[in-house]
Amino acid sequence: MTDPLRVALAGLGTVGGGVIRLLDANRDLIARRAGRAIEIVAVSARDRSKDRGVDLSRFDWVDDTTALARSDADVVVELIGGSDGPALTLARATLGAGKAFVTANKAMLAHHGLELGEAAEAAGVALKFEAAVAGGIPVIKGLREGAAANEIARVYGILNGTCNFILSKMEAEGRDFAEVLAEAQALGYAEADPSFDIDGVDAAHKLSILASIAFGTRPAFGDVAASGIRHLLGADIAEAAALGYRVRLLGLAEAGPNGLFQRVHPHLVPLDHPLAHVTGSLNAVVAEGNFVGRLLFQGAGAGDGPTASAVVADLIDIARGEFGPPFAMPVASLAAAPKADSGERRGRAYLRFTVADKVGVLAEIAAAMRDAGVSIESLIQRGASGEGSVLVAIVTHEGPERSVAQALEKLRGSQSLIGQPMWMHILG
Amino acid sequence: MTDPLRVALAGLGTVGGGVIRLLDANRDLIARRAGRAIEIVAVSARDRSKDRGVDLSRFDWVDDTTALARSDADVVVELIGGSDGPALTLARATLGAGKAFVTANKAMLAHHGLELGEAAEAAGVALKFEAAVAGGIPVIKGLREGAAANEIARVYGILNGTCNFILSKMEAEGRDFAEVLAEAQALGYAEADPSFDIDGVDAAHKLSILASIAFGTRPAFGDVAASGIRHLLGADIAEAAALGYRVRLLGLAEAGPNGLFQRVHPHLVPLDHPLAHVTGSLNAVVAEGNFVGRLLFQGAGAGDGPTASAVVADLIDIARGEFGPPFAMPVASLAAAPKADSGERRGRAYLRFTVADKVGVLAEIAAAMRDAGVSIESLIQRGASGEGSVLVAIVTHEGPERSVAQALEKLRGSQSLIGQPMWMHILG
Repeated sequence: MTDPLRVALAGLGTVGGGVIRLLDANRDLIARRAGRAIEIVAVSARDRSKDRGVDLSRFDWVDDTTALARSDADVVVELIGGSDGPALTLARATLGAGKAFVTANKAMLAHHGLELGEAAEAAGVALKFEAAVAGGIPVIKGLREGAAANEIARVYGILNGTCNFILSKMEAEGRDFAEVLAEAQALGYAEADPSFDIDGVDAAHKLSILASIAFGTRPAFGDVAASGIRHLLGADIAEAAALGYRVRLLGLAEAGPNGLFQRVHPHLVPLDHPLAHVTGSLNAVVAEGNFVGRLLFQGAGAGDGPTASAVVADLIDIARGEFGPPFAMPVASLAAAPKADSGERRGRAYLRFTVADKVGVLAEIAAAMRDAGVSIESLIQRGASGEGSVLVAIVTHEGPERSVAQALEKLRGSQSLIGQPMWMHILG
Repeated sequence: MTDPLRVALAGLGTVGGGVIRLLDANRDLIARRAGRAIEIVAVSARDRSKDRGVDLSRFDWVDDTTALARSDADVVVELIGGSDGPALTLARATLGAGKAFVTANKAMLAHHGLELGEAAEAAGVALKFEAAVAGGIPVIKGLREGAAANEIARVYGILNGTCNFILSKMEAEGRDFAEVLAEAQALGYAEADPSFDIDGVDAAHKLSILASIAFGTRPAFGDVAASGIRHLLGADIAEAAALGYRVRLLGLAEAGPNGLFQRVHPHLVPLDHPLAHVTGSLNAVVAEGNFVGRLLFQGAGAGDGPTASAVVADLIDIARGEFGPPFAMPVASLAAAPKADSGERRGRAYLRFTVADKVGVLAEIAAAMRDAGVSIESLIQRGASGEGSVLVAIVTHEGPERSVAQALEKLRGSQSLIGQPMWMHILG
């Protein structure tokens, strides 16, 4: 057996602690599988005195995190977080020093992945980030290697466990978003500032990484059209259910003749689609390949155990010497795909309006649809809960998204509408 | 870019044709991803004159398949099938000649995997077989690499698409096994001799390979207790549905203190489990790891496109130089796990008896259960379709399988029973 793989660990939050516990618990098994031991030699975090429930006295404590890049470790694992700041400084220093780098940091990869990928390639070392997307699910590997023989038409999935937890709870209990969010926060399932999760930013970070690997394109986080679940009503979920759908926040990336389309948005998912059955805080990713067809990867998208599992899987790959270009192909061969115009996309839509309960509102909405060329498949009008307002839920026939946008534009500022309409795409 | 990876292809059935079509269709993409081109240089099959819908004139035709091992290819791909015979001869010759070997042949791996793994390790070359288990789904990779940091408690799944197709159809249409099998055969979804599929042999081959990789044990096909779906009635599926379950043929392997338990058997799967929603000819595999929790991999388990996708994924790994020991760790470190006794396992069971419609039958069954210490959770007796027979369906409380076996032993030869009882395990 060859020398151990020496690891320096930056960041000792829940995931950092999980990595230490995992390497302790599965030490022998990992050595057998990796062909060599994997040993943490140095750690660094902000607060040395904090009790993390694991014995840190075995490791060198390094106060200056960046100094890990100059340690005698073979690999630095970054679990600090944040797109810039100490994480980025450490990444640059580590790769610059010719050491391998493993991270769970989706924000940093979404913003600086290309630069870091180039640095890793220049140094001939590994840059791995399985834990950055969908936690414990080996979906980076699934796309980079498992589906590598395929041209991928689209990749999509449930990439944020907090949102899926909230949606599942809204669905099961018939409650509105704000109420469920407050409860999720009280239980620690959602952050005090939940915006990154519920507004789709976190999912957009992950989607941009997945898309790069699936399509061989440069990560383009800025091109992801992201919205979240903040404006969903319990009534939207109930209407969707009545129509045979469940509501899921999907990140979806699609390669087409006009470029790369990337979106994070709540979707209606038909009950016969596996994503409709992904509940609670689980994540799941679907890739559609031209030979393999539809592949699904599902599991825990967050948490210390699953995330540590992905981090250590990367370390095992490195220990085995089984790694290549971080983005599946050299950065220089990644295409700079233009952002595809969503107006060109065709699909069916769910539209929900909250309107004043007065004469002529339905005619106004119907006229806007007609004028924009949107064909209505079904329309339901229901009295809302005792405030003089009414819900109108429409499902359209398949058509260009541009027409729906035009119809909504026509209705903008209408005195009949209360608040913003809700537009969800129906997964086809 | 380095030299192309030169491939010799043995077997030009549907999968062989699929591999050629895939390498043609996705040629440039694969070269970008693999860092080099992948080129077929030689082919061999039984009948040179057969029209396979692909242009073979570009390749060297080799009449003697074994001679591919001496060709100037870097890798031989074996798509002939059969546990012994020409496939095994070719495998031995190829690895003996120090060339990499890729195969979709689960029967050969189940019987001779250890020998071939040793030969590959001795030669320092790749032996890869992603296509041998669950077709296009990268589940070998998922276990070998994606879940590598985990101690796996159990691995189980839907490993035979023909059986799942038949079960889904029985479920959707309320029909009996024999009728649906005949239809599946007429449509080409089931073989003329369907025994390998419907009696669980094919799934057992695959399970023994999965178990080896999941648990670090020697493949032990002979230790798989396999039965199939031949004796299932439409009524079993209906009773299961009434109880909130779907019937799936599962291969399940579990590591315990008393050894390795491996079984292929129809199971009742609760509706809130993802495998309950895997319909048609799809496959799906679940692995439960001590840190990652439950991972699910789902997709097409057969067919030329998906299988070719897995074969070429292996070739891309080889082209990238990203491969290691075939069974995730060197053959010498694989443990020879004893076969665990199923009697020790605890679980809930579904038991169905077809009985004569006469006084005292129920008392006889109930007495046998009581005497063996089997606790009954629910019992339904229904008149069967007009033949003077009655169905008795029992769900037991959790208990040792030994007790259920004892109860059935007591009832063996009873004049009241018509045919064999059906015993299914309830997935817990």
